[in-house]
Amino acid sequence: MQTFETQEEAPRIKEPLRRVGITNLRTVAKIKWKGKVYTFIPLIEVTIDVPAEKKGIHMSRLIESVTEAMSEAVEEEVLKTHTSLEELGKCVIGRLEGKHPHRRAEVWIKTHLIIPRETPASGKTSYEPYDVEVGVIKNEDGAFEKVLRVKVIGNTVCPHAMANNNGKTHIQRAIGELEVRTPFEEEIALEDMIDVVESSFSSPTYTLLKTVDENAVVQGMFANPKFVEDVAREIFAKAKERFKGKIHIRVISNESIHKHDVIAETWN
Amino acid sequence: MQTFETQEEAPRIKEPLRRVGITNLRTVAKIKWKGKVYTFIPLIEVTIDVPAEKKGIHMSRLIESVTEAMSEAVEEEVLKTHTSLEELGKCVIGRLEGKHPHRRAEVWIKTHLIIPRETPASGKTSYEPYDVEVGVIKNEDGAFEKVLRVKVIGNTVCPHAMANNNGKTHIQRAIGELEVRTPFEEEIALEDMIDVVESSFSSPTYTLLKTVDENAVVQGMFANPKFVEDVAREIFAKAKERFKGKIHIRVISNESIHKHDVIAETWN
Amino acid sequence: MQTFETQEEAPRIKEPLRRVGITNLRTVAKIKWKGKVYTFIPLIEVTIDVPAEKKGIHMSRLIESVTEAMSEAVEEEVLKTHTSLEELGKCVIGRLEGKHPHRRAEVWIKTHLIIPRETPASGKTSYEPYDVEVGVIKNEDGAFEKVLRVKVIGNTVCPHAMANNNGKTHIQRAIGELEVRTPFEEEIALEDMIDVVESSFSSPTYTLLKTVDENAVVQGMFANPKFVEDVAREIFAKAKERFKGKIHIRVISNESIHKHDVIAETWN
Amino acid sequence: MQTFETQEEAPRIKEPLRRVGITNLRTVAKIKWKGKVYTFIPLIEVTIDVPAEKKGIHMSRLIESVTEAMSEAVEEEVLKTHTSLEELGKCVIGRLEGKHPHRRAEVWIKTHLIIPRETPASGKTSYEPYDVEVGVIKNEDGAFEKVLRVKVIGNTVCPHAMANNNGKTHIQRAIGELEVRTPFEEEIALEDMIDVVESSFSSPTYTLLKTVDENAVVQGMFANPKFVEDVAREIFAKAKERFKGKIHIRVISNESIHKHDVIAETWN
Repeated sequence: MQTFETQEEAPRIKEPLRRVGITNLRTVAKIKWKGKVYTFIPLIEVTIDVPAEKKGIHMSRLIESVTEAMSEAVEEEVLKTHTSLEELGKCVIGRLEGKHPHRRAEVWIKTHLIIPRETPASGKTSYEPYDVEVGVIKNEDGAFEKVLRVKVIGNTVCPHAMANNNGKTHIQRAIGELEVRTPFEEEIALEDMIDVVESSFSSPTYTLLKTVDENAVVQGMFANPKFVEDVAREIFAKAKERFKGKIHIRVISNESIHKHDVIAETWN
Repeated sequence: MQTFETQEEAPRIKEPLRRVGITNLRTVAKIKWKGKVYTFIPLIEVTIDVPAEKKGIHMSRLIESVTEAMSEAVEEEVLKTHTSLEELGKCVIGRLEGKHPHRRAEVWIKTHLIIPRETPASGKTSYEPYDVEVGVIKNEDGAFEKVLRVKVIGNTVCPHAMANNNGKTHIQRAIGELEVRTPFEEEIALEDMIDVVESSFSSPTYTLLKTVDENAVVQGMFANPKFVEDVAREIFAKAKERFKGKIHIRVISNESIHKHDVIAETWN
Repeated sequence: MQTFETQEEAPRIKEPLRRVGITNLRTVAKIKWKGKVYTFIPLIEVTIDVPAEKKGIHMSRLIESVTEAMSEAVEEEVLKTHTSLEELGKCVIGRLEGKHPHRRAEVWIKTHLIIPRETPASGKTSYEPYDVEVGVIKNEDGAFEKVLRVKVIGNTVCPHAMANNNGKTHIQRAIGELEVRTPFEEEIALEDMIDVVESSFSSPTYTLLKTVDENAVVQGMFANPKFVEDVAREIFAKAKERFKGKIHIRVISNESIHKHDVIAETWN
Repeated sequence: MQTFETQEEAPRIKEPLRRVGITNLRTVAKIKWKGKVYTFIPLIEVTIDVPAEKKGIHMSRLIESVTEAMSEAVEEEVLKTHTSLEELGKCVIGRLEGKHPHRRAEVWIKTHLIIPRETPASGKTSYEPYDVEVGVIKNEDGAFEKVLRVKVIGNTVCPHAMANNNGKTHIQRAIGELEVRTPFEEEIALEDMIDVVESSFSSPTYTLLKTVDENAVVQGMFANPKFVEDVAREIFAKAKERFKGKIHIRVISNESIHKHDVIAETWN
């Protein structure tokens, strides 16, 4: 039976498209990070551009590129695993180059990282979760860029209420987001980006806190009152100093005295 | 041309089903509440049971029941509007009775309520949002039940940290949920259910707070430290005293010193 | 007792911030649209810029601006209601001008619209829901821009599978998003934007479909097979022709043969 | 300095609570499954009951129980890993027994599973994602129960539209959920539950589909039209035959001709 390749036909409306592909794909990935092998079940998006004269893309070739790049991930004995999420993204684009013509390609990988920390007083180990997202972009000139994003949970302690209430104040959970867009070669560890955000709140937060640790966090918060604006400025200043590239930051504070949130956002 | 009513055929697997219908339907509704007419754009679910010998239900008749019950809602001049969300739900079931055979029917309506409050010190008006959900259930014996749910944002102030840190402590946003399941005739105002939850936190929260109000809230919070367990017990005790029926409560606290939440839940 | 205005102090890190304010605020709004008054319970964000030398902003003044602009909304007899969501946003900025110094301000309003449609064969009325978002931006030079966004649910019918399976194919729900960024004065109706998107799918969708209507939709879909790329191109071409401004479109198809989605996105 | 154990004090309102603990905790877990070691980053909830005379629970002991049970998970060389998610849950409760008095305890673990499948025509490997949740419940009499939940993405092909349109019809993505509640000892594989759901749709779905595979899926769908009611009945009948326990099923179909979903739900 004849097979039609409808994707190769001319479309009725001849308009190039910038980003066409697959999104919300949940799959398994394995990377080497600081000498250890970590398994993730990330959410993945892969897109390429479509020229004006082609009706569509061959979606299954994008999936094959992901599957092949990830294939080591489901084997127990791995000889060669990718050394970071961005290498994994670049590897997907590499596979894609042999499979589907395109001028521009993007791979986005979104997952959770768990990092062990030491609690502030008892010195116990606490495993802290962070949301991270890595985008690898091959531009039309063949140059690779990357976008690195981290999302960190901390807190704010209101200095205005503290000044007006003899040291009493309101405190709440806050979420800090940092994005850096930079050439692919630029070496930036997600761990360092997380540190920049986490160290900019009134206090870092911990999954495990014994009473002595809780006391240390409470004392630390009251010694370090901050508006959401202060947190934003500190993340921004530190990020500009440590990371080369285009920086975008956003802090959201889940106010304990309001039903809405407050926000501070800036970029360079 | 002949029209087939596939729904009326016998299914291959003869098994009665309890809840079949439409869900996640966004539409417009208008009700009278305390003499005023309010418009909502709720999310609606309508289900009926299906006997073992029928392949399926006629979904469009459920939609027609909703549309007819709501139809006043989009007219500017309304002669008869429903007097509460639960009357609206019952009205949908009433329309359904003439359209589709069934033994059991449920209508669920989920929306936001905005209630004006007075701020604690400046006496200004603050408009407070609450999530509410109302279920109307016609049981197989023809008796009507209703399920009323409210979700209220407040806060918790940790008494344990306060005792161990000379009055310093951690504070956070908390969400209290109260559900009452009761015969349809039982008169219970969603507003009263909201009051029960909102008055059980360390402090109620307000959309608008001038500095004097913020001070009053901060002072109030420190005078009223509560675990999530304390909030849960207070909601549960008040609800049992004020409302006849089966009561289920849940409080979630978005801890400011942790990345996870804490929860307290109980029911009778 | 002395009141401290901590917000007016100099911050430790002197860095201007672009967007500081309140977000995820649920409140009530009432607008006049084609001669009728509509009530919404939108989600609102209001932000202003903060200069390097000020520690923070006075959040309560943003809330007051919203509350005052909305205040007519909760009165039953309204003399003057806003004539569109964008006028409402501009009105919030107007109130803000008298309350809080700033150079740049943004108001974002997100809500649902319900629009009556006629079903394709039986001619019945079907109420269709759409997600819309309107942003009003006062730039540093005092000029106003607006950003209009609509999100419409339709479907795609795969032409490739149809060509290879003698007319059989796979069909699925798809979501089309259209954004136009343009000077505030530009007259663009959200309804027209919705029409552009809804008319670009394999078929529009309806809340109510009697059997004859369902048949018309099914026949229409098979007569009009489209890739997600085709839908994207048609929305983009129509939007560029009808609306002046910067246009961004995105179509997501919830594939019925895959667990992931496919995406087509472009902009000018 | 003296440490206060506020949790051990008597509460003002003496009311026992059924479920108090931590929720939305993201952490890392490693289990052995069919001889291989798999790493997950699940979402975890741990709760215990609180007697009327105790003000609260010691939340950090719940965290320690999780951390200790999971601790192998972050080591590269693992001697003893848990052999399934339910063993991991039971292990958390085991740790808890030595740390915190309680009469009732629950552990809930929510994660994604990736299972390799063979595509229907080309015989390639396709990695399919599924959402699973496992609850382990220690009742007041010391007996252990478990709740197993799987969520599978498939599709429905409308038999009513097909009968009325000479074989043309509407098709859409559907989501099937199956829950089994049973004594802990009962051996039920999540994989088998997934098979029960996946085999009950008009067709299973695949991440990777080459043209010959797509054709096979399309042909299979048209040969197997099903209402959401049919899918629900088939899941329910198969589950009752294969699994001992209390069974609850729900199927949601993301209609391609409507903006809302349809639902079929039942239980024994």
